[in-house]
Formats: sequence, C-alpha cells, structure tokens
Amino acid sequence: MDIKKRILVDMDGVLSNIYEQFKRYELEDTGTLIERSETLGKTEQEAFVNSLKYVIKKGFWRTIPVMPNAIDTLRILNKKYEVFIISSAMEFPNSLEEKYYWMEEHFPFITWKQLVLCGSKVMAKGDIMIDDHFKNLDYFDGRALLFSQPHNFGKENRGHERVEGWVEISKILL
Amino acid sequence: MDIKKRILVDMDGVLSNIYEQFKRYELEDTGTLIERSETLGKTEQEAFVNSLKYVIKKGFWRTIPVMPNAIDTLRILNKKYEVFIISSAMEFPNSLEEKYYWMEEHFPFITWKQLVLCGSKVMAKGDIMIDDHFKNLDYFDGRALLFSQPHNFGKENRGHERVEGWVEISKILL
Repeated sequence: MDIKKRILVDMDGVLSNIYEQFKRYELEDTGTLIERSETLGKTEQEAFVNSLKYVIKKGFWRTIPVMPNAIDTLRILNKKYEVFIISSAMEFPNSLEEKYYWMEEHFPFITWKQLVLCGSKVMAKGDIMIDDHFKNLDYFDGRALLFSQPHNFGKENRGHERVEGWVEISKILL
Repeated sequence: MDIKKRILVDMDGVLSNIYEQFKRYELEDTGTLIERSETLGKTEQEAFVNSLKYVIKKGFWRTIPVMPNAIDTLRILNKKYEVFIISSAMEFPNSLEEKYYWMEEHFPFITWKQLVLCGSKVMAKGDIMIDDHFKNLDYFDGRALLFSQPHNFGKENRGHERVEGWVEISKILL
C-alpha cells in the first residue's frame, strides 16, 4: 500500500474567495466598489478598512464565495493525497462553527476528521502546504505553494512556489 | 536564545474533567449516580450510555469542570515550553465556540494563537504530547504522556509514559 502524501490546504483566500466577500460587504455597507487594482500589495485590512467590522458579523464566514475550480480540484486531490484543511480561525471565534458548515456545504467529500481550525499553523506537519500567507509557509518544512492573492501581489516568493489558482494546482499536483 | 520544546496538550479528559460533566448530566437527566468504579476500562459511550445526547446540548462543553491542578501547572509550563492546546472537537461543531470560551475563562494566559481544534491529531508536530487517548498518542513521534482516565484504566501503556494527573506532570516536566 502506498503511503499518501499529506497536503495542508488553507481556507481563506485559497478555498474561499474572501476578497469577493469583503468587496460585497464594503459595497453594501458604504456603497463603494473597491477594484482589485486598489487592493494589490496591501494587507486585507489596508485594502478593506472596515474589514474588522465585517468579520464579526453573523453570516460573514458562512456565505463566502468558493474560489473558482477549488471544488473539482480538491475532490480529485482528496483521492490521491491525505488532505487536511487547516484554517487560522481562532482570532474570530464566531467563525469556527460557520467555517465548519461552510466546508460541509461546499466540500461534502471532506470529512470532519480532515478539518483543523487553529490560531497558528507552526504545529502542522505535512508534505505540501497551499497557503496565501508567508507567515504560514515560512515555518513549513515541506513543499510550500504560495497561492496568489492581492495581498501577496508583487512580493518576493521567498523560495516558495507561486500558483495562480486551482487550475494551476491541479496541473502541478495531479 | 533557547528554543523551547513544544508541548501539545489535550482538552477533554486532560484539562477538562469530562467524566464529572457526564456524571452531572446523567444524574440530572436520569437520577442515576454513576460511580467511578463502574466506568473503569469502558469507553465513554459505554460508561455513559446517554453521552451522545448530552454532548450536543447547548452549554455542555462550556461548563465542564477543570481538572484538578491543571491551571497552576499549565501556567508554569506555558513559560518554560511552547504550549499548544489541541482538542478533537470537530465531531461536535457545537463544541467549537464553547471550547474557545472555556479556555478563555479558565486559562486566560493561553492565547488564541495557542489553540487548535481538529478532527484528528495526526498532523500535529511537537516534542511532547499529553493525551488520554491511544488513538492520538500512537501516531505521535515525540514523547507521549498517557493521562490516566477511566477509559484507559487497566490497559497496556503501549510504550507511552502513564501519568496520574497534573501534579505528576509538573514533577516530570518542571
């Protein structure tokens, strides 16, 4: 029996399109439509100055749109690899249950045994990590895939492999 | 600068006295007082046949009593070691937020960055693990401390070091 390689997959900005969600909330709240070009190279809080107000609202985490092609690619990865979904959720305890049910709705083939909600990912062990944040990838001692998001736009890759989305991930890993 | 060793500490049956909580719920619900001697060597579900009914009740996880001497010992461990609290919580999504606030109430010196709520602990990396379940310790490649609880009473230690409680842990690790 082959031992499957373990992939650690991030949620926000990788499985979930959190920028789209911030844009929606900002538009509804202030009437301002923030263009992608305005968010490049900025932190999420710099790009969406009201973000900390939105993330504590009931339903914010439950209703984030799914990243394009994430479902189909993860479904196949889940057969070939040992997949864990690991999300920094602990800063916003209201997100915990919403993230659980969000996963259950959109990725029903991922079981609760594969979910990890944490505050820091330094204790996570695996062969491959897919994440949009350097703070997670820099501590990881396996193969690190940097998922392109506006906040890491134009930044050095720091030795990680940059991927532009789930189609590229499927080409690399499948 | 010394690099601190990392300890992974379990919640249920290690920091929290879940047997006492099951006893309380059973007594209130059925009028039956279950003695410790009746629970020895049985799984929690065998010892408390109504347990699956209780764990989904609002407040069950939020009101579990703290294990004797856990607070004082963990406060000191937290200075000497890099501590993570890692709990298998995902089977009961109602427990997620309650566990967060339970930790905040009883262990305010542990920050949200140190909390991990998961379904399986096989992806956790550390030097020492304190846990009452073989299913977690058996996969761990560091020093494994088996916290004595009624369900593991009389069982082989499987190469792990058995500890009887937090006073013994403080003697071993401090």
